[in-house]
Amino acid sequence: MSESVVVAGIGMTPFGKFLERGVRSLAEEAVKEAIADAGIEVKDVQTAYFANAVSGLITGQEMIRGQVALRHTGLLGIPLFNVENACASASSAFHLAWMAVASGLYDVALAVGAEKLTHEDKTRSFKAIGAAVDLDQIRDLQKKMSEGVEAKGEKGAAAGENRSFFMDIYASMTREYMKASGATAEDFADVAVKSHDFGAMNPKAQFRTPVSREEVLQARIVSPPLTLLMCSPIGDGAAAAVLCSEKAARRLGVRQPIQIRASVLVSGRDRTGKEPGAVERAAEKAYDMSGIGPKEMNVIEVHDAAAPAELIAYEDLGLCPRGGAPDFLRSGVTRLGGKHVVNPSGGLLSKGHPIGATGIAQIVEIVEHLRGHAGKRQVEGARVGMTENGGGFLGQDAAAMSVHVLSS
Amino acid sequence: MSESVVVAGIGMTPFGKFLERGVRSLAEEAVKEAIADAGIEVKDVQTAYFANAVSGLITGQEMIRGQVALRHTGLLGIPLFNVENACASASSAFHLAWMAVASGLYDVALAVGAEKLTHEDKTRSFKAIGAAVDLDQIRDLQKKMSEGVEAKGEKGAAAGENRSFFMDIYASMTREYMKASGATAEDFADVAVKSHDFGAMNPKAQFRTPVSREEVLQARIVSPPLTLLMCSPIGDGAAAAVLCSEKAARRLGVRQPIQIRASVLVSGRDRTGKEPGAVERAAEKAYDMSGIGPKEMNVIEVHDAAAPAELIAYEDLGLCPRGGAPDFLRSGVTRLGGKHVVNPSGGLLSKGHPIGATGIAQIVEIVEHLRGHAGKRQVEGARVGMTENGGGFLGQDAAAMSVHVLSS
Repeated sequence: MSESVVVAGIGMTPFGKFLERGVRSLAEEAVKEAIADAGIEVKDVQTAYFANAVSGLITGQEMIRGQVALRHTGLLGIPLFNVENACASASSAFHLAWMAVASGLYDVALAVGAEKLTHEDKTRSFKAIGAAVDLDQIRDLQKKMSEGVEAKGEKGAAAGENRSFFMDIYASMTREYMKASGATAEDFADVAVKSHDFGAMNPKAQFRTPVSREEVLQARIVSPPLTLLMCSPIGDGAAAAVLCSEKAARRLGVRQPIQIRASVLVSGRDRTGKEPGAVERAAEKAYDMSGIGPKEMNVIEVHDAAAPAELIAYEDLGLCPRGGAPDFLRSGVTRLGGKHVVNPSGGLLSKGHPIGATGIAQIVEIVEHLRGHAGKRQVEGARVGMTENGGGFLGQDAAAMSVHVLSS
Repeated sequence: MSESVVVAGIGMTPFGKFLERGVRSLAEEAVKEAIADAGIEVKDVQTAYFANAVSGLITGQEMIRGQVALRHTGLLGIPLFNVENACASASSAFHLAWMAVASGLYDVALAVGAEKLTHEDKTRSFKAIGAAVDLDQIRDLQKKMSEGVEAKGEKGAAAGENRSFFMDIYASMTREYMKASGATAEDFADVAVKSHDFGAMNPKAQFRTPVSREEVLQARIVSPPLTLLMCSPIGDGAAAAVLCSEKAARRLGVRQPIQIRASVLVSGRDRTGKEPGAVERAAEKAYDMSGIGPKEMNVIEVHDAAAPAELIAYEDLGLCPRGGAPDFLRSGVTRLGGKHVVNPSGGLLSKGHPIGATGIAQIVEIVEHLRGHAGKRQVEGARVGMTENGGGFLGQDAAAMSVHVLSS
């Protein structure tokens, strides 16, 4: 590795349900904003990495999704790669863009994540999300569920297609986590309350209305103990980042470069026994690479596809001891004004989770804070931040896991 | 770029129709072979890039295709990226693996391309192939064709789904190329004859029976002037390569490392007027990077998804002057014993074209020749070789184009 790499520019659409917009329109907006934010021109971008997870199953467009989405941006001609790693697709694209610059091969790289997950036929959206898991695993789960349902004499609705098996996997992890840590449904509700409080301060969040603990607990059960408000929503959006070498940042006059101190991606594996999971492995590498530990993180975006995942992440990232997440949350340290603010964007729960955009949207949020531009939700004096972005499942481990450390 | 990179090991399944095998089985075979060929162990592999183009539309598996395919290889845990660039997916994966090692970040990287394109429902295979083009372009083409067919009072069969629109695009390019160069259907037939002659010498080729010029010309018309024997077939297969730094090759005792002298990928763009296409742009970069010109290439694998593409590639790669490809072919210089042997593997036409495996299969072929291991089809004394692997279409340009230069 020969070059230090910075984030030179960021761009992001609002997240939400945009039935009338496609991947191209979303990607174009984020890219245009990121390039303008960097203060560079389209012709300065030398290579690009495009993340998208569901277009194939939503629209039928595969294989060259980035070329199709960026066709009218003036970017084409440069090396362009379509990258997938489920919900960690965007951080994978970001990592590869980082590698392209860190290698010294390129001065300026673009990472884009864009996703159009809503479809008038919801079954299609759910089916698309399901492709982030080994399909054999889904089939086993489906079989088990439909047997369970039949045993109760019901008609297989729970095993139907109009739901996300993803949340069944999260729910199963959650039940195990509750046993191990003593975490309660109230704790998960409090994560959702915190996220919605933050979402209310983020003009780009999909949900911008605070909710109460009672509302979270009384919402429809998706998969016990997860209620609807503990699960990230289906939505659309795009995020983009311009990365460049420190040298190029000076040459191009980038105003507020943010340092990439660590860029890590690992794949999951079928764990046996107590061996560390993907988050722990990725975080350890990121702390080694950056020389910065979890206790120094002022602001952190974690992958709370379901609320309990935020608590589990506190522990896996080493922000608190094993089993200590409920107390860590209750102490208020992860709320605004706390020492380690987590998910000030509103997180996946409230900001939204357009799968292939999420990883870069997390980077966008951290960059906003490190620049001091995060508005009402600004973490005062933030100097160091981190993102944790997981993708898909292999068994109960993430299939891909990315951790980034940034500093002003 | 800090490190010189070599191909340390190669692996490849036979190409063909394997209705009973899946992507995992194919990928496992190629990976196992590549790792054994390199003389290393699974644990030596530090990062992996997995290429696949159609699983999403064939089986529904998206997002984490590499993790699913490699789940039982012992490889997981390392950084793993799922890469797509249509028919250039595998060379994209190979290029990224090269970048991972060239950057100095990794000593040993694995590139894998695996594809299961056959399906008992052929419509599904054709639809999957079609996703390599901007879907808007396909819809326009479909509309134009169905209008044309209606005008002739026919029943829309030509506009039906059970065909590849890909070949309609190739056919349209071919008709233009015939006007510009004077190439004839007989020339295209001769490309197919040469390919099948080579395929007959390649135990891993999908078609291993020579054909005559007459047989090629009299085969069913797919899209005029292309007959069935001028089009690459639908098939399955996988190919893998282990890449490592020269330093690591010495440390690991790699027996016959092959130098990667240039690794290039560019994206296509909508061309206006006479600006150079993706092949020319990629080749120029590869010649610059390697300091080796087209006239020095002993053995070349080009992307002959349709027979005329081989002739066009002769010109785009600068093997012969513009418009000179028919004469170049007729001179015999690209046949066995010639100065620039092209597609000794049998090419996409005869070796087969499992989309996401093709780019690495081309590398495998060149490595075999540079090692002197290509059996009956060995290009004697081959020292320098090249691959050209294109993916998808944007207008009439490739959406992605990769050129690699290798030397012994």
